[in-house]
Amino acid sequence: MHHNLSSSLLENAVQEFSKLPGIGRKTALRLVLHLLKKEKHEVEAFGNALIQLRREIVYCKVCHNISDTEVCHICSNTSRDNSIICVVESIKDVLSIENTQQFRGLYHVLGGVISPMDGVGPADLQIESLINRVQSGDVNEVILALSTTMEGDTTNFFLFRKLTVIDIKITTIARGISIGDELEYTDEVTLGRSILNRVEFTNSYK
Amino acid sequence: MHHNLSSSLLENAVQEFSKLPGIGRKTALRLVLHLLKKEKHEVEAFGNALIQLRREIVYCKVCHNISDTEVCHICSNTSRDNSIICVVESIKDVLSIENTQQFRGLYHVLGGVISPMDGVGPADLQIESLINRVQSGDVNEVILALSTTMEGDTTNFFLFRKLTVIDIKITTIARGISIGDELEYTDEVTLGRSILNRVEFTNSYK
Repeated sequence: MHHNLSSSLLENAVQEFSKLPGIGRKTALRLVLHLLKKEKHEVEAFGNALIQLRREIVYCKVCHNISDTEVCHICSNTSRDNSIICVVESIKDVLSIENTQQFRGLYHVLGGVISPMDGVGPADLQIESLINRVQSGDVNEVILALSTTMEGDTTNFFLFRKLTVIDIKITTIARGISIGDELEYTDEVTLGRSILNRVEFTNSYK
Repeated sequence: MHHNLSSSLLENAVQEFSKLPGIGRKTALRLVLHLLKKEKHEVEAFGNALIQLRREIVYCKVCHNISDTEVCHICSNTSRDNSIICVVESIKDVLSIENTQQFRGLYHVLGGVISPMDGVGPADLQIESLINRVQSGDVNEVILALSTTMEGDTTNFFLFRKLTVIDIKITTIARGISIGDELEYTDEVTLGRSILNRVEFTNSYK
């Protein structure tokens, strides 16, 4: 049971923070008391950053990634390879792949995966716009980079059937043992797959 | 190394969240993406709650606790016992004690403890206003409820010397073994103190 704090302003701020995932009431109070000690303009910068983000955010009309502009800075970057599209579930995946600095192509954010259990069908995802993009563009290769779950596999298969009629290469990101992992602790399915999908040993694998 | 996110609005919101204690960049991103999925009015309620708190908060002119009004709802509550004042370091301590529902007196928030190392002297704390309160009021008892640190002890001693000339009872909260704790795992100092400060066994201790 919780008592009201001595101030309804404080109570309100704590309740708002507690709504965030993984933030309990104790943490919320700690964060709010931290903000109270900050200068007025710092707290206003924080609050306004969130309000402005939610108000002004747009999604790139090409790849559906978060953007400040109609076409995002990845899609509009002419130094990137527009012949390769990497298909991902969410914005977070774009950030993860960008952080690897290993991919210089473009993205396509589906907005989820096909999941009949959750009522998500192909029409709820950015699949039609992907097909249009691949058909109308200079695309040579589509990389499917979805989760290795049943829903991810279902979506991969659905996309494969749609894309295979177009003359492009369809690939999927390599699944296997994480770098630094010991075989002993790798799950059987991953280990099995990594043997089936073994690659030729070259200097780059040293 | 971090790359800029695809949106400066997003980057800005993530950076603001990362400034909070205990919130790293990954958590910040997770929280911001969560807010992005919320309705506009919900995010505005969150941002405005923080801004409003920082702008409008006042401190009770009697006890210096956080308040919405000149005199806080504890000090102005006539059903509370105004003959007992519990002296604490911070607002958090008021909340902790209120949550126990065991105290019906009033508080006095010092705003810290005497700490020469951190440049905090008696004049930086709400000590003078405590003395004035005790001298001018109907106070019978002052409970010292400060941390059991060297600084807390120094402050206790300082307050004791100031208060002992006034005809009131001065007490301090009981230190001892936590309820549910095993002796085996209690630190020596706490165990030693709890033996020195032993209390008569009564039915209430069963």
